[in-house]
Amino acid sequence: MKKSSVQLVEVGLRDGLQNEKHQFSVGEKIEMAELLIAAGVRRLELGAFVRPDRVPQMTGSAEIIKAVLGKYGSKIQGSALVPNETGMTAALETPVKEVAVFASCSESFSQKNINCSIEESLARFESVFQAARKNKIRVRGYLSTCFACPYEGKISAKKVVALARRLYKMGCYEISIGDTIGVAGPKDVEELFKMLKKVVPVAKLAGHFHDTRGMATANTLAAYQLGVRVFDTSLGGLGGCPYAPGASGNVATEDVVYMFDSMAVKTGLNLDRLLAANQWVKSKMGKELPSKVGRVGRLKPLGKVEHR
Amino acid sequence: MKKSSVQLVEVGLRDGLQNEKHQFSVGEKIEMAELLIAAGVRRLELGAFVRPDRVPQMTGSAEIIKAVLGKYGSKIQGSALVPNETGMTAALETPVKEVAVFASCSESFSQKNINCSIEESLARFESVFQAARKNKIRVRGYLSTCFACPYEGKISAKKVVALARRLYKMGCYEISIGDTIGVAGPKDVEELFKMLKKVVPVAKLAGHFHDTRGMATANTLAAYQLGVRVFDTSLGGLGGCPYAPGASGNVATEDVVYMFDSMAVKTGLNLDRLLAANQWVKSKMGKELPSKVGRVGRLKPLGKVEHR
Repeated sequence: MKKSSVQLVEVGLRDGLQNEKHQFSVGEKIEMAELLIAAGVRRLELGAFVRPDRVPQMTGSAEIIKAVLGKYGSKIQGSALVPNETGMTAALETPVKEVAVFASCSESFSQKNINCSIEESLARFESVFQAARKNKIRVRGYLSTCFACPYEGKISAKKVVALARRLYKMGCYEISIGDTIGVAGPKDVEELFKMLKKVVPVAKLAGHFHDTRGMATANTLAAYQLGVRVFDTSLGGLGGCPYAPGASGNVATEDVVYMFDSMAVKTGLNLDRLLAANQWVKSKMGKELPSKVGRVGRLKPLGKVEHR
Repeated sequence: MKKSSVQLVEVGLRDGLQNEKHQFSVGEKIEMAELLIAAGVRRLELGAFVRPDRVPQMTGSAEIIKAVLGKYGSKIQGSALVPNETGMTAALETPVKEVAVFASCSESFSQKNINCSIEESLARFESVFQAARKNKIRVRGYLSTCFACPYEGKISAKKVVALARRLYKMGCYEISIGDTIGVAGPKDVEELFKMLKKVVPVAKLAGHFHDTRGMATANTLAAYQLGVRVFDTSLGGLGGCPYAPGASGNVATEDVVYMFDSMAVKTGLNLDRLLAANQWVKSKMGKELPSKVGRVGRLKPLGKVEHR
């Protein structure tokens, strides 16, 4: 029997660090990318081509991309977020071969997050797709607030499916379905992905879950059971949740790897090395990261311990 | 179509508080029980008849049981842990109609936790079962370290199944299968419960998961998918983990209710009232509890928020 496998897309360096107050230096981010690659990470976000005055955490993305792809380009799939043509132009000055665009399923969230309507955001992507085709660059699509929005509440699955279909038709090779504020439960995931699979091949869909309400591993399991094989995860659970200070954001890579390891589903990642990378990030940030496996590690017989 | 439902057994007052340093007064525990019952809790641990010099947190269990059962006895199923005949004798002096016995699947854990071998623990239960039959008291069985033990590592599923079968034959009306140190993944749960179902009716099995490694909701989902309909949960995730200081212990009632609510599976519990009970416990303990839903609540549209 063929062993099952999944692909994890490491978003800690971009989606994760972008939402953390601590500012890593360019050199530290390169080191973090190297630790991730040493742990087996093959798909990872390396940065974003956004306005440094608005997103200072993403400063130096070009330099990071050049350094990391210069060294590991042949064996990894590194990507950068590009919000528009300006970002794409900057991306084209680097060796990056994959970019990502970001759309929301909620008008309010789109306005507040990227200052334009959903339609306007899709229109902006046209020039990104054109440049991508011309330069043989793959485009990944992020769809955010696919279950609910902090401003509008529940989002209709039909709306999500229609947007996923459009992004796919526009040329996204993969659509990442985001539970941006971590409100979905496994049944919500099941229902949405069942609908999505009818319009986008399941192999082209990714799950992007947040652990804000402790549902991320259950949601990952539910999506896996439906045939989803790509998941976005963040080392240590980096990322937090801007809508609930102190709450968990992105599901932790370590926790997802722990779960798939226990299911004998291949991730290609080495948990012990991920735990070492977690410790490195923790030491730099001076705080414990949300990942639960990151905190306790895998099972180690303890020997003599005092307890009842 | 008949709506699906599950029963949650609230273990916060016993299993939870027993493993917390903060000492609640008898009056506070009665108040906590009342908050839980107001939230819809119908099955709950109320205390333990153990040596107060060894487990000071359980002091006053008789008083709590008398107060709570005196007021709500007709509508709730309250239980007390009894380790042996002495404990059972004490339980019989209260109106409690359900007791629980506790055995381990690991020899080392049994020795270190209850100071006897597994066989000796089962022998001690004989007198408990005799007294229970005579006094028409139900006996629930807890099986701990059903997946792995902190001293011995992985535990054989065959051993767990054999012990569950024995407890069932001895007279336990329900066997709670505990992942005491939170190491199992959903596939482990699936494999063990598939074997257990062959020797104990699935309606007589309960899942008792710990969120030490972030797997508890995924494991609950996996067990639910196999037909398990009873789960032990702890308000706020009270309980911690004596083997990993600072780590999560029992899965939080709020998180499990949130998940089942999202699946339209009836728990009979009111999440908002549970969240109020969480706030009450938090204020008494002066610290945030592990429950993720307890920290962020259910989705509330946020209105205007500054963010990217």
